Amino acid sequence: MKKNYLMTPGPTPVPAEVLLATARPMIHHRTTDFEAVVRDCVEGLKYVFQTQNDVMIFASSGTGVMEASIANCFCPGDKVLVTQNGKFGERMAQIANVYGLDVHVLSYSWREVVSSEDIKGFLAANPDTRGVVVTQSETSAGVLNDVQTVGAIVAEYPECILIVDSITGIGAVECRTDEWGLDVVMTGSQKGLMLPPGLAAVSVSAKAWAACDRSSLPKFYFDWKKYKKSLEDDTTPFTPAVSLMIGLAESLKLMREEGLENIFARHARLAEATRRACEAIGLELFAPVEGRGNAVTPILIPEGINADDLVDIMKNKHGVTVAEGQDDYKGRIIRIGHLGYFGDFDIITTIAALEMSLTELGFEFETGSGIKAAEMVLMGE
Amino acid sequence: MKKNYLMTPGPTPVPAEVLLATARPMIHHRTTDFEAVVRDCVEGLKYVFQTQNDVMIFASSGTGVMEASIANCFCPGDKVLVTQNGKFGERMAQIANVYGLDVHVLSYSWREVVSSEDIKGFLAANPDTRGVVVTQSETSAGVLNDVQTVGAIVAEYPECILIVDSITGIGAVECRTDEWGLDVVMTGSQKGLMLPPGLAAVSVSAKAWAACDRSSLPKFYFDWKKYKKSLEDDTTPFTPAVSLMIGLAESLKLMREEGLENIFARHARLAEATRRACEAIGLELFAPVEGRGNAVTPILIPEGINADDLVDIMKNKHGVTVAEGQDDYKGRIIRIGHLGYFGDFDIITTIAALEMSLTELGFEFETGSGIKAAEMVLMGE
Repeated sequence: MKKNYLMTPGPTPVPAEVLLATARPMIHHRTTDFEAVVRDCVEGLKYVFQTQNDVMIFASSGTGVMEASIANCFCPGDKVLVTQNGKFGERMAQIANVYGLDVHVLSYSWREVVSSEDIKGFLAANPDTRGVVVTQSETSAGVLNDVQTVGAIVAEYPECILIVDSITGIGAVECRTDEWGLDVVMTGSQKGLMLPPGLAAVSVSAKAWAACDRSSLPKFYFDWKKYKKSLEDDTTPFTPAVSLMIGLAESLKLMREEGLENIFARHARLAEATRRACEAIGLELFAPVEGRGNAVTPILIPEGINADDLVDIMKNKHGVTVAEGQDDYKGRIIRIGHLGYFGDFDIITTIAALEMSLTELGFEFETGSGIKAAEMVLMGE
Repeated sequence: MKKNYLMTPGPTPVPAEVLLATARPMIHHRTTDFEAVVRDCVEGLKYVFQTQNDVMIFASSGTGVMEASIANCFCPGDKVLVTQNGKFGERMAQIANVYGLDVHVLSYSWREVVSSEDIKGFLAANPDTRGVVVTQSETSAGVLNDVQTVGAIVAEYPECILIVDSITGIGAVECRTDEWGLDVVMTGSQKGLMLPPGLAAVSVSAKAWAACDRSSLPKFYFDWKKYKKSLEDDTTPFTPAVSLMIGLAESLKLMREEGLENIFARHARLAEATRRACEAIGLELFAPVEGRGNAVTPILIPEGINADDLVDIMKNKHGVTVAEGQDDYKGRIIRIGHLGYFGDFDIITTIAALEMSLTELGFEFETGSGIKAAEMVLMGE
């Protein structure tokens, strides 16, 4: 018998009560029973997104709504600014290129924060820009970008919308959709929402609906207007992922019970414990001080240690699954996820597994130093 | 306490062992554990699709793969022939129009079978046609179209592919993808595959891959080439719907244990029992004799009976959910689904609920006559 611990930045662990809700006997989606589920999901998501904008739910993973945000808001040739400091910003630029937009990229290393000043400068020089895309919380790099400041900048341009990929942000870090003027905000189910993957959600402001009205790009399954119309009757235009939505209603109930402020504080505490523990062990944090997100902590693999071996020992000997690096950082970092259904002892478990695995690989440090540092943070000291 | 029975043509009931498989603790998708799930799903689907073609799985409902079949196979202005004898054929034409194809429609009433001769004639007059679209089993009308004959016709045209919407067909009626020359075949999870909605699958022939190679329409999330490439490593390009795929592996195991021949025979028996029972009660079957599918049985509501009342009494008094008619046939038909996880006594239950509900609404017939007719079929007499 080996207990397994999922410490990845998506999929994340799902509470048993949510898993069991997804396993309830199937119901039909064109019924008053399911209309109540749709209402609960939409109201709960508005709370989590901190918005009064329309919120729509799709049977897809996060990339589906990333594509939808491009296909619904633009016309071929529209000038858009895509910011990149990780894999998912790069994906947004790829999608915008596929749809024939006039794509301008502000590219940063994966260890830098996107510069709001650069965005301000670009828009001043290109006032005809139709959209700005920012990844709030880069899953690949653990970096948190300042979408609040970007929101204030983009608000100055009445024909330019701000699209925020908050797939790893929503439910983990503060994201004040309305107060910050974020026109399109998206998330996926397998992150802060504590669900299996397979659902994605998006919020759309009045300014973004105006962009949508002029959009001429082809779309059908992800056509926002169809979803908005169906929501008037608390339903969806196409068969929804019924079991996952029943689970979503359940997880949103848990989130409302805990309260957003407490959720964010919990994520901050767990992230800080993880960071201090890793530094105490002698590992270097990947993300820059000014942009360390609380959803996932990437750590550089020390000289002489093989990343595959480390991940393998943690998973196959200790049952603790962490994520490897992606693309250029494959083999160079590991990523410890702590967004969603995580508590103090998930961090303790992971740090202990990390300590034991590093020791086995010959890395020298004081055994228990990581745990000690984590405990100090968790005790609030 | 009221027991509930889901007798709709999708979502369909999910076996408890499959529901519980979907509720297992979450695992990460970039692991050898999940690669095994992908392999099981792909191999199982090839068995069910009766194909050696590539089979790909998407986190979406059926409409997503309908759109994908257009976006992946064509260029703007391509001439395609879409056949329609129900809501889903109409949807395929809408999608083809959204993508700027040169859409030609062969339209039939919802009570007619698509004519293979008409298709043959159209292709003879339009040899530059790039694609023919046929809905094998029309969920909205219960009509089964003869894709085998169409397959032989389209095979004569090396640059024309046959796209088959078998969303309500696969796992319920015979669909010999390779033997019949069906280039693109699609299904959804919430039908014959006995799963919750949220997954869709498609098989793609070499001829369809050639079409895909020249396609210039925009796509990203549904880009087949990305999925094909990822399948080389038993993975998916984007986060898959992990829990539903674990359920799919389980349901495919059940299907292999029963065997396709037995599955089709069971569906034929249950459909015939339903049809005979309805006729014995004095109800008129909606679908024409030459095209009665075994996935769903639509029945005309008799004069003087209100469809909403009938559906309401069946559901709210007896716990039996059947589907209403769609679009023009809303209020004029009800549809009894019997595809997927259905056995003899699901039909008996439904017919008994139908008899009791019709009696309450004042419809005159001999109580028990429907059950008697059903039993005769179920006894093989």
